[in-house]
Amino acid sequence: MAHELDAIFRPQTIAVIGTSRREGTIGREILHNLVEFEFNGMVFPVNPGAQVIHSMKCYRSVLEIPDEIDLAILVVPSERVLRTAEECGLKGVKGLVVITAGFKEIGARGAELEHRLLEITHRYRMRMIGPNCMGVINTEAQYKMNATFASGIPMPGHVAFISQSGALGAAILGHARELNLGISKFVSVGNKADTAADDLLDYLKDDDETHLILLYLENFGNPRRFTRVAKELSKQKPIIAVKSGRTQAGARAASSHTGALAGMDVATDALFEQCGVLRVSSVEELFDLAVAFKNQPIPRGNRVGIITNAGGPAIMATDACINLGLTLPSFGEVTQAKLESILPEEASIENPVDMIGGARAAHYASALEAVLADEAIDSVLTIFVPPMVTGSLEIVETINRTSKQFTKPVLGCFMGRRDVFQKIELDPGEMLPIYSYPESAAKALEAMVRYRNWRERGQGQIRDFQVDRNKAEAILNRVQHEGRHWLSDGEVAELLEAYGFPLPPSILVSDLAGAQAAVQEIGYPIVLKVIAPGLLHKSDLGGVLVDIRTDQELAQGIMTLSEKMARVESSYPDYQIMVQKMIKGGQETIMGMSLDPGFGPLLMFGLGGIYVEILKDVAFRISPISDRSAREMIESLKTRDLLLGTRGEKPVHIESIVTTLQRLSQLVSDFDILEQIDINPFIVSDEPEKCFVVDARIAIRQIQTTA
Amino acid sequence: MAHELDAIFRPQTIAVIGTSRREGTIGREILHNLVEFEFNGMVFPVNPGAQVIHSMKCYRSVLEIPDEIDLAILVVPSERVLRTAEECGLKGVKGLVVITAGFKEIGARGAELEHRLLEITHRYRMRMIGPNCMGVINTEAQYKMNATFASGIPMPGHVAFISQSGALGAAILGHARELNLGISKFVSVGNKADTAADDLLDYLKDDDETHLILLYLENFGNPRRFTRVAKELSKQKPIIAVKSGRTQAGARAASSHTGALAGMDVATDALFEQCGVLRVSSVEELFDLAVAFKNQPIPRGNRVGIITNAGGPAIMATDACINLGLTLPSFGEVTQAKLESILPEEASIENPVDMIGGARAAHYASALEAVLADEAIDSVLTIFVPPMVTGSLEIVETINRTSKQFTKPVLGCFMGRRDVFQKIELDPGEMLPIYSYPESAAKALEAMVRYRNWRERGQGQIRDFQVDRNKAEAILNRVQHEGRHWLSDGEVAELLEAYGFPLPPSILVSDLAGAQAAVQEIGYPIVLKVIAPGLLHKSDLGGVLVDIRTDQELAQGIMTLSEKMARVESSYPDYQIMVQKMIKGGQETIMGMSLDPGFGPLLMFGLGGIYVEILKDVAFRISPISDRSAREMIESLKTRDLLLGTRGEKPVHIESIVTTLQRLSQLVSDFDILEQIDINPFIVSDEPEKCFVVDARIAIRQIQTTA
Repeated sequence: MAHELDAIFRPQTIAVIGTSRREGTIGREILHNLVEFEFNGMVFPVNPGAQVIHSMKCYRSVLEIPDEIDLAILVVPSERVLRTAEECGLKGVKGLVVITAGFKEIGARGAELEHRLLEITHRYRMRMIGPNCMGVINTEAQYKMNATFASGIPMPGHVAFISQSGALGAAILGHARELNLGISKFVSVGNKADTAADDLLDYLKDDDETHLILLYLENFGNPRRFTRVAKELSKQKPIIAVKSGRTQAGARAASSHTGALAGMDVATDALFEQCGVLRVSSVEELFDLAVAFKNQPIPRGNRVGIITNAGGPAIMATDACINLGLTLPSFGEVTQAKLESILPEEASIENPVDMIGGARAAHYASALEAVLADEAIDSVLTIFVPPMVTGSLEIVETINRTSKQFTKPVLGCFMGRRDVFQKIELDPGEMLPIYSYPESAAKALEAMVRYRNWRERGQGQIRDFQVDRNKAEAILNRVQHEGRHWLSDGEVAELLEAYGFPLPPSILVSDLAGAQAAVQEIGYPIVLKVIAPGLLHKSDLGGVLVDIRTDQELAQGIMTLSEKMARVESSYPDYQIMVQKMIKGGQETIMGMSLDPGFGPLLMFGLGGIYVEILKDVAFRISPISDRSAREMIESLKTRDLLLGTRGEKPVHIESIVTTLQRLSQLVSDFDILEQIDINPFIVSDEPEKCFVVDARIAIRQIQTTA
Repeated sequence: MAHELDAIFRPQTIAVIGTSRREGTIGREILHNLVEFEFNGMVFPVNPGAQVIHSMKCYRSVLEIPDEIDLAILVVPSERVLRTAEECGLKGVKGLVVITAGFKEIGARGAELEHRLLEITHRYRMRMIGPNCMGVINTEAQYKMNATFASGIPMPGHVAFISQSGALGAAILGHARELNLGISKFVSVGNKADTAADDLLDYLKDDDETHLILLYLENFGNPRRFTRVAKELSKQKPIIAVKSGRTQAGARAASSHTGALAGMDVATDALFEQCGVLRVSSVEELFDLAVAFKNQPIPRGNRVGIITNAGGPAIMATDACINLGLTLPSFGEVTQAKLESILPEEASIENPVDMIGGARAAHYASALEAVLADEAIDSVLTIFVPPMVTGSLEIVETINRTSKQFTKPVLGCFMGRRDVFQKIELDPGEMLPIYSYPESAAKALEAMVRYRNWRERGQGQIRDFQVDRNKAEAILNRVQHEGRHWLSDGEVAELLEAYGFPLPPSILVSDLAGAQAAVQEIGYPIVLKVIAPGLLHKSDLGGVLVDIRTDQELAQGIMTLSEKMARVESSYPDYQIMVQKMIKGGQETIMGMSLDPGFGPLLMFGLGGIYVEILKDVAFRISPISDRSAREMIESLKTRDLLLGTRGEKPVHIESIVTTLQRLSQLVSDFDILEQIDINPFIVSDEPEKCFVVDARIAIRQIQTTA
């Protein structure tokens, strides 16, 4: 087989183990669904208590089946799953779909069972979906496999759907049918013991039947692999995802139900952003986007034309488009002239084009043609409210036909009178997407524009700076060896210096004479800081004196610090004093890293002080980041204008931020023992020589040693 | 008649003028709809070119009809509307519904026609709906009037719907039928020449058939009257509104289509906020709320219980609830014990209650009963994803039945399998609201909680401060008399002082000796400002010197200012110098007023500097405001924590802000000539004696004089 997961999706033979004669049971429904959808291969029921099920010969065990078995669907009670899996392994089965529940999701006992199940599948080199799932579907004509217990017959198409919730998956299959959204593959991943979303994305990359991928996720198994796979795939096929458990309470609900750890939502947003996955906030929005991506071309840009026969919905559509960052440009002169010649005098030939209530199919056709031909327009939203006159069907079909003459997306918002639209007898695959509300159509257009930008966006460069890695390693080894969590200030400075972070000029001294010499070199104003191994809260100790401007203040300062340290000398016998250039002016920013157990190092950037504390206006990305990602972090801030200088002031030196973020990315990539880095403040100004890391704190992970 | 508008909604006799034999014409459809809905009174077709229409005797003119006519529906061409209206007047008709378009919405010529039409209706004391509308409906059993050309038969119920867009109104009537949302009254208001939303709200106040009011608005005719009427009505009946034209582009689209002025969106938000109207952003949301308000009790608070048979949707519901400010409290011990005894071991008895896939009707009944009985829960969201087993119908009906035993709202989110729910044969009016997506249900619950808070919220007090109104009037009269737009600094200070605004201690002087005497009284540090009639940009002139701390600096400052003024002496011969206490510390806020042509004085408050410039974090209210509204302005700021001191600092003296906002409200209410007031900064600190208006600018409107 070409791919390991073909064992799941492209079997020649399937055994349904634990199927039943009793209608309404899961085992019976799966068998029924396989037969009803006319699976192209052979299906064997297995149940020690029956001879015939669904008019088919029933086997006592998978081992008794005379033919080779590619795929086994397990619906046996959880206490029998291990033995059954073992038998499948012995039989040479290549794939398992374990429907049975009672594993990780019920706690420690179930987790242990799941662990042992996974061992068996590994031992026999079987791939597995589940446990605790509702099955898989592959609508490819050559296979036609519906190995789920969801009701209804799957509609073939080019949309793959991966769901971490079985029940939701079933509901979504139902909605998809109503929306004429044909499915290529459906997978309910359950507890994801062996096969998670990232494996499936990797598999779908080469699946010609799949053009669009929809995800419902509650957590990530392996966020880094997901990122890598999704990043590549999303350049070819759009991926739209609902990730639930956004709020802490939601995450708690998620963890109680799937046994998964709660993922931080900022990390999820960063992840999706970095790998081009279009995140939506509800299943409703998932469908709104899916029907547009399904059969419409991706627009070249964000310029929307609106054509309507009713003012109200057009106003609402305009509001929605503008709020989402789309634009409604004026039409070119040619377009305006065309519209003027076509439409009655009372019509508005501006954008939105309001053809008023009397508009007929011919008006829609001509107006749509004119607007689609306009170079200033990337996509068109047609709005149609059926008046009491007849001809609605003709109008809908005309819009659809006209839209096919161009390679720009055309969406329809046809309000009210669902009875009319249910009569449309077009091939559903050929029909333009139709929405009931203009806001839904606008959301879909915005997502398509976002996807276009993602596909055209360069990857950016991950820079490799010349650094003193050995020195950094030595520092971190020492901290780890000494069992410390926090680096001392001296170590922080050395580490950051080794990685080329811009630090203010500073000199370590031990007395006034040394300090005076240092000032000769650095110049006033200066800051004095007490530095000692193990001294963390120097500010609490009164160990920092700022804005020293004269020799007199310097002498006074050294004396003050010496007296303070004399009182705690026994704790810090080897203290020194750092004479550091005082940085004035510039904009305070913060950057940092916190290690997420699942996502790895999460980089953060924002403006300092009030902006981070009150407004939480910070950007996150998962390390490593390219220069492009660093720049996007800056641009995504609500307070970016304070950096970009759009209020008439000089902009700060953005490249210094970009470079420093990338140095941070390199540092945390090099040492996975780093747990937390807070650079606060990183002061930036309009010249690169005036951008400095003024203070920082760094902590490493506690490594459990076995010794 | 009890109310003038009864002429429109409760006629005994109706003439349809301009009706037609031709099917598919508006005139014919209205006649048909009146007959089809079985209007209880008499209908008379009027058309000079026909003898019979729809099997009814047709009259050449309304004057020829032998009976008295209460209501006339006009569908004649626009050029015949005036003559027809005149005839209606002569006939003694009491109400007109003018369907005909071609009035204000097409420009100046149409506006003139509309003006003359209005004159006729006033002359004959007729009330009018329209022109340019699609008619009215009253489903009351005694009348049963469908005087619209919308297709479909109205479903009677208790929801009134007022729409400024005819087409959207028709679409909404269609949706309402699908959602079993029965209508009491429907009005397409068109150009609102005589009757606008505020008139209709006033009418609906005493309409026992109407329990809930839905609005689609593009602008307000008379925002102040709307506010007054809606504020009273919304305490008895919920009002839910879509106001489109939110964005500038949307407003442009709105104005090109209805000939209306664009309303500022902040003003609209403020207006709705102040009169308890629940604003939604789309028609979809309008319906989401309407079906919940229709037949569910208003919850006592924001504490939601969730009961589900599937994890995924419950997580999404939890996310949605939390994001909207609802809470999911833990259940009481009694509830937990009950749930434990009812549900299988694998179920989660926390909130959300996850009864897992096997849950039957009995489980739903017992769990819902237990949760509804819990004192810690105000409302319940039941989620049900039909599994493949049968019994779905029974579950839905059980949930509905159980919910009736309590007086708490219960909403349903039943996902997928629309086929199942279409089979429910309950009286639609009796069915709990069912949503397809949990987010919609959460939005409805949030709106109900918001409405509860509004209903229970006290009005607050509009204070009447002791002020020197005569002095203020004299100042403003002088400025107006001299044809000036801006008040001078001296006038600003006098005016604000007359209204009791806290100004820093200051003394006007004309030389150094005077300044020295002033400092004796005020104390350093001080600010020196040049004050002269007509001098506006004193800062540009260098006429402000701050932070003067010593006698030497004072002498120097007075000299500097004298020299500067000597250069421009001819312009400002009467200048003086203001010696003002320099205010240090505290938090800079801004407050102000700008006069909106429609809404009147719009008050504004926010933090100063960056917060207003970059973050646009300001609150608006329409004057006059109560102390409660003033407090809500402060609390609605994203940056409120900076004032409330929640970061460990002392809170500022909030009452000083509240009082000053109310003084501002009183000032602008007293003088409608005021056009703009910018108080920037109003410095507030933790003590009332340290809160000061440090600078302000005030402008009056240009009054056109006829002399």
